[in-house]
Amino acid sequence: MNENTDSTPRITLVGAGTIGLSFAVLHLQHLSDPSHLTIYDTRPDLSDYVLSTLPRYLPPSHASLAQRVHLASDLPSAVSSASIIQEQGPENVAFKTDIWASIERHAPRDALFWSSTSGIPASAQSAQMQDPSRLLVVHPYNPPHVMPLLEIVPSPRTAPAAVERTLAFWRERGRTPVVIKKECTGFVANRLAFALLREGVHLVAEGVVTVEEVDRIVETSMGPRWAVAGPFRSYHAGGGKGGLEAFFANIGGTVRGCWEDSGRENVGDGWEEEVFRQTREAYGEVDVAMRDRITKRVLEVIAEEKNRK
Amino acid sequence: MNENTDSTPRITLVGAGTIGLSFAVLHLQHLSDPSHLTIYDTRPDLSDYVLSTLPRYLPPSHASLAQRVHLASDLPSAVSSASIIQEQGPENVAFKTDIWASIERHAPRDALFWSSTSGIPASAQSAQMQDPSRLLVVHPYNPPHVMPLLEIVPSPRTAPAAVERTLAFWRERGRTPVVIKKECTGFVANRLAFALLREGVHLVAEGVVTVEEVDRIVETSMGPRWAVAGPFRSYHAGGGKGGLEAFFANIGGTVRGCWEDSGRENVGDGWEEEVFRQTREAYGEVDVAMRDRITKRVLEVIAEEKNRK
Repeated sequence: MNENTDSTPRITLVGAGTIGLSFAVLHLQHLSDPSHLTIYDTRPDLSDYVLSTLPRYLPPSHASLAQRVHLASDLPSAVSSASIIQEQGPENVAFKTDIWASIERHAPRDALFWSSTSGIPASAQSAQMQDPSRLLVVHPYNPPHVMPLLEIVPSPRTAPAAVERTLAFWRERGRTPVVIKKECTGFVANRLAFALLREGVHLVAEGVVTVEEVDRIVETSMGPRWAVAGPFRSYHAGGGKGGLEAFFANIGGTVRGCWEDSGRENVGDGWEEEVFRQTREAYGEVDVAMRDRITKRVLEVIAEEKNRK
Repeated sequence: MNENTDSTPRITLVGAGTIGLSFAVLHLQHLSDPSHLTIYDTRPDLSDYVLSTLPRYLPPSHASLAQRVHLASDLPSAVSSASIIQEQGPENVAFKTDIWASIERHAPRDALFWSSTSGIPASAQSAQMQDPSRLLVVHPYNPPHVMPLLEIVPSPRTAPAAVERTLAFWRERGRTPVVIKKECTGFVANRLAFALLREGVHLVAEGVVTVEEVDRIVETSMGPRWAVAGPFRSYHAGGGKGGLEAFFANIGGTVRGCWEDSGRENVGDGWEEEVFRQTREAYGEVDVAMRDRITKRVLEVIAEEKNRK
């Protein structure tokens, strides 16, 4: 199953929203022939939209490739010769179960099916499929053309070979696919991030700090630290020779104190208005292009330094 | 109160552990005269220890300064001419209340008192002081000579002028002091970080991912993202023109689903052995020097890019 399909993959993106186009940018930087990329969407202005948006995100040397991408508004023809079909449609179980059943009828028998969903597990999406073994979640961290992480979340019925092919595809492209062993609400990256967000909401609601102060704290402490060494590795280092165990022996009391203080129903109703207001007033509209440019440089510096070792 | 004390501060560090020496490194890069820095500790090998450790963390051009630092094993003389006394002794209320009472007897009347504690609020530390108005917590993110954040946590009895002087001191040195408005368990940075750690522990204990996978996920997603734009700013951007409110309108269901799934007593007993074992096996001993070198470069790149704007 592994060999010839992916050496010259034909990729069809189902859904041309922000995430779809970001994946298009990523794929175009690795495909030998841009016409091997198909973008399917039912929006009537698909061509204008893709041709005006895509080149903005491509490196200048690749901008002209956008014109050679294959655009499609008919699903059967969009998927009929694809080796990989990557879906980022509405976050809606009915939409996804329907579209996978259609795709299955028209796609080649060995094509891989990937959903970019942030919340609907493959086991729910495959409910109407004859053969759910080739469907799995490939959940990006936005935007995927910048961020290396891809959460690979098979259902219990996904074939191990489909997972292996998926991992090989992303590793070849220098990305970081991580297999999530159980389908759980929100998968892993969002669960981790939302746990911190929740504590931030709680502290803002309590008047301990403002929204902007939470961000400033994260940007000047755990953000840069965790970009280089994740939380377990960092606290393991923090324990010196005794590692994580020594870390917990030393300050486990404070850790558990924080967990107990924040573990209850501490984020109830009524925090929204204040948190939304503070965020709006602090930031207005965020310059996402600048954020992504700086994030790219951060990732480049880390890769360069880690390889230097 | 603001003017002449801090223009040529005389700083006494109480406690020469890892944090004390890291602060020494930071101060030495900003003091016009290294003999204005005093390191007090009762360890018998203080001089050998400081002279062998400090130069390793100083930039090569500053390494010789270590020899000119004033070392002291007698508290009254160590603090008698200091304008700032910065304590990083044992995390023990009795130790801290005792030592501040002694320091108060021997220090100049206008000296500022800073504790680096990660858990004992200034209001508890000042219990035996005559005048608690000049004591506050200045909690670093380790190591302080690398990480910009300083959590400034006054007690209700700390004078506003003492807070202002502290903020001015750190801002002049290009650091990021953030005032925490209420003394709460663990202050803010650790509470945020520990909330994410707790969810990580939970997911490892449930067998969803390994310790190493949690770290890899964080290092390739929210780490680099949050180094550039903290969580509120990022989710505000994620909501497009509608901002954070639109973000919650779109995927608030998943956010709350994650909160509910992780909000209960999900980290009970018995996770430690497995988590410690995985961490030990994944990392052995962490190369902290490399981590800090890369973190510095990440911070430099971010500062450079943000200034470029």
